[in-house]
Amino acid sequence: MEFSSKLLENAVNEMSQLPGIGKRTALRLVLHLLRQPKEQSFLLADALQKVRERINFCKSCNNISDKELCDICTNPLRNKALLCVVEDIRDVMAIESTGSFKGLYHVLGGKISPMDGIGPQDLKIDALVKKVKLGEVNELIFAMSPTMEGDTTNFYIFKQIQAYNINTSTIARGIAAGNELEYADEITLGRSIIDRIPFEASLKL
Amino acid sequence: MEFSSKLLENAVNEMSQLPGIGKRTALRLVLHLLRQPKEQSFLLADALQKVRERINFCKSCNNISDKELCDICTNPLRNKALLCVVEDIRDVMAIESTGSFKGLYHVLGGKISPMDGIGPQDLKIDALVKKVKLGEVNELIFAMSPTMEGDTTNFYIFKQIQAYNINTSTIARGIAAGNELEYADEITLGRSIIDRIPFEASLKL
Repeated sequence: MEFSSKLLENAVNEMSQLPGIGKRTALRLVLHLLRQPKEQSFLLADALQKVRERINFCKSCNNISDKELCDICTNPLRNKALLCVVEDIRDVMAIESTGSFKGLYHVLGGKISPMDGIGPQDLKIDALVKKVKLGEVNELIFAMSPTMEGDTTNFYIFKQIQAYNINTSTIARGIAAGNELEYADEITLGRSIIDRIPFEASLKL
Repeated sequence: MEFSSKLLENAVNEMSQLPGIGKRTALRLVLHLLRQPKEQSFLLADALQKVRERINFCKSCNNISDKELCDICTNPLRNKALLCVVEDIRDVMAIESTGSFKGLYHVLGGKISPMDGIGPQDLKIDALVKKVKLGEVNELIFAMSPTMEGDTTNFYIFKQIQAYNINTSTIARGIAAGNELEYADEITLGRSIIDRIPFEASLKL
């Protein structure tokens, strides 16, 4: 791709560093910005600069936060003995939006994935084990995505904390609301039968 | 979507102003930047700021340029009497990359599209007609996309310059290289038969 402007080329190159954005898409986005009022580009540039410069991770749960401890960890109404282990902050946001969880989170920052060169030492596993050791936790909920890497990560952590006497659970796997049975995969459908729940309990949801 | 950080929320909101980028994608992109070295975000922010602040459009052809006149318009080796009319600078880049055109361009900045509220007065049509009036142009090549809007724009310009004695042409429509005949649409295939070229001429390409 040949550019008639160095400034344009530079902007397109930087934009195309983002995942899933190739040179053509980057060019489309930059040309869009050029057609908009200047303020839009300036606000975007400023927001990107500031978020990278000033962002903090909660000292306790590793969630993104503007303060030293995030609003969830400092909320006195939440159950500090119930800990939900998630991969990244998008999972925290997803679970928070359900309003079904009143404990705290522990954000690992990824999952064990030898293919991508990510081992246990790259994740916030030590800090999690330390919380368990200190006796702060009654129950650990594993809420990783149900993939090979997610399962591996769950199992690795389980082995580390097995010796301490706490409850562990994983989020239920089953048929999603509104899904047709015939399109469900066999593993999910099989688990949903094994893990069936009393009908009366299901009415309360 | 609830955010645990105002800085993050702000960056995601600004990013999701871009076309084709929703809140979820914006969040994924910003979280990606947070995992990369700080320099990447700073370079991106800086490039976006600078491109919007300092970009110029060529005074003659309306192509994007860092100077008053773009490199194509000032190139003494190019044929100034041959003018290719295109929609935007992406088309200039596409045609330039073929190496098949040695004339100059005229970038309209869009096409006539009543559905989007874009009329002739929103495009650089007056400047084009002026060039023709001044007798600077021998041949005008219409290189708009072959859509309803592209055809309308071509025809509008044609009516304006009809009185001046210059040649006009449009880029050839036909079967693309490597395409299977059976999948070509009827209009394109029909045109490719009407506009057939001598076999010997096709060998020279």
